[in-house]
Amino acid sequence: MTGRLSLNQATIKYADLPTALRVTREAGIDAVGLWREPVAEAGLATAAAMVADSGLRVSSLCRGGFFTGPDRRAALEENRRAIEETATLAAAGAPGSAPVLVLVAGGLPDGDRDLPGARARAADAVAALADDAAAAGVVLAIEPMHPIYAADRGVISTLGQALDVAEQFPADRVGVVVDTFHVWWDPHLDAQVRRAGSRIASYQVCDWITPLPADALLARGMMGDGHVDFAAITHLVAETGYAGDVEVEIFNQEIWDADPAEIAERTAKAFEAHVAPWLPPR
Amino acid sequence: MTGRLSLNQATIKYADLPTALRVTREAGIDAVGLWREPVAEAGLATAAAMVADSGLRVSSLCRGGFFTGPDRRAALEENRRAIEETATLAAAGAPGSAPVLVLVAGGLPDGDRDLPGARARAADAVAALADDAAAAGVVLAIEPMHPIYAADRGVISTLGQALDVAEQFPADRVGVVVDTFHVWWDPHLDAQVRRAGSRIASYQVCDWITPLPADALLARGMMGDGHVDFAAITHLVAETGYAGDVEVEIFNQEIWDADPAEIAERTAKAFEAHVAPWLPPR
Repeated sequence: MTGRLSLNQATIKYADLPTALRVTREAGIDAVGLWREPVAEAGLATAAAMVADSGLRVSSLCRGGFFTGPDRRAALEENRRAIEETATLAAAGAPGSAPVLVLVAGGLPDGDRDLPGARARAADAVAALADDAAAAGVVLAIEPMHPIYAADRGVISTLGQALDVAEQFPADRVGVVVDTFHVWWDPHLDAQVRRAGSRIASYQVCDWITPLPADALLARGMMGDGHVDFAAITHLVAETGYAGDVEVEIFNQEIWDADPAEIAERTAKAFEAHVAPWLPPR
Repeated sequence: MTGRLSLNQATIKYADLPTALRVTREAGIDAVGLWREPVAEAGLATAAAMVADSGLRVSSLCRGGFFTGPDRRAALEENRRAIEETATLAAAGAPGSAPVLVLVAGGLPDGDRDLPGARARAADAVAALADDAAAAGVVLAIEPMHPIYAADRGVISTLGQALDVAEQFPADRVGVVVDTFHVWWDPHLDAQVRRAGSRIASYQVCDWITPLPADALLARGMMGDGHVDFAAITHLVAETGYAGDVEVEIFNQEIWDADPAEIAERTAKAFEAHVAPWLPPR
């Protein structure tokens, strides 16, 4: 099996881990992006055994981060647990698995309007975790989030900002996530993807659809259903030499409400049509 | 009268022009930001007479632009009409009125995923209109729009992009709009506001509120109700020497549904509390 598609669990949010692994495999997909919550539901050791049995690669664990709140110590402890989980799950996955922990910065605390301050706290937390990640053989992957989430979810808003933080550390310890949903609008995208180079620890794809659904957190669409130029962005990412799996991560109520096996198949088809043609063979 | 607050008509969208002018004056506000639709409803000559009678300054006309669609010629003709309207209305306003036409770039045409192409068309249209604006004594003010609107409303997403276009022309002919709602998240905001300097043709304020309302186009809040640091941004803009009126432009269904006179008063109070303290006296 040679496909580079990885089904991120968030795309089939209501499936438990065994179901997610089964429908992924049955759709002919070779890799899976895991989330901490369904892993915890199964128990880490059991989850790792299930992953090993599945024969799937693990492309990342979502997600760590949320560094901007008042309790720094608790956030760091939670992230150290996530680092260990990442190492365990990647070791259980098939060869080619990536020990990548996706980090979301977190938003502004209630009543706090100091965006530069929150951004500094996020950078500081990455610094505090870099040695732990190195010791565990895990790559911290900073995910810039679309500016629509700057207030309440992720204060790191651009790939450039994520790289400003990541570049304080060796490239094999702290990288970045390029998620088309979050970065497609960025006028500096070309330059920043080139700058990222080998720091791209994860490439995630989904579409930007309009009109935005009522819940803007669920405003993601299947590739081809929206406005993102997957040919251009995928080509850019491929040009950096990125050779990892490509995750499809879609937060969308309609997709969540559908049968996960059907969604896995739809995802594979949309990936073949809109993303795979611009990936070099591996 | 010395206040620098201007009530943008969009904040009291359902009020016709005479009502808008009356509630603005009665709230002790000295300036108004006009929109083309209610002006057209009154008729341009009648609207200009009403504005002259009101004694209010005109701080801008919203809005021209929408340059990215297939019919370039029609878009340019429409914008030439808007330039003439801007000159007429600013001349009718009280001394200190600003002949500023706010330009919104427009979104991606249906099925078009070429964002750089759409951005180039917007820049090209500004170039095509610059001489017309100069002849009419009007300033074209390019408004960068929050990336949430990049697909369907405005492909110019950052102040830096707007300046890249504006700087092709003399500063008194093509400027930019700094609207807190659109730019508050930008990690380069400080540097780009300083870069803008005398090109800031309009400073608009409203807040970014969460959770986002169901219609993300209406996701704006009264100053103080959200996450924007008005002290920091207003100080930055004031440091450039910007001495014009400051418009409050809020798209929000709840505010639209309220009594416009009450909204004008609320606006004046919120402005006094959250913006005025960081404006130098004029």
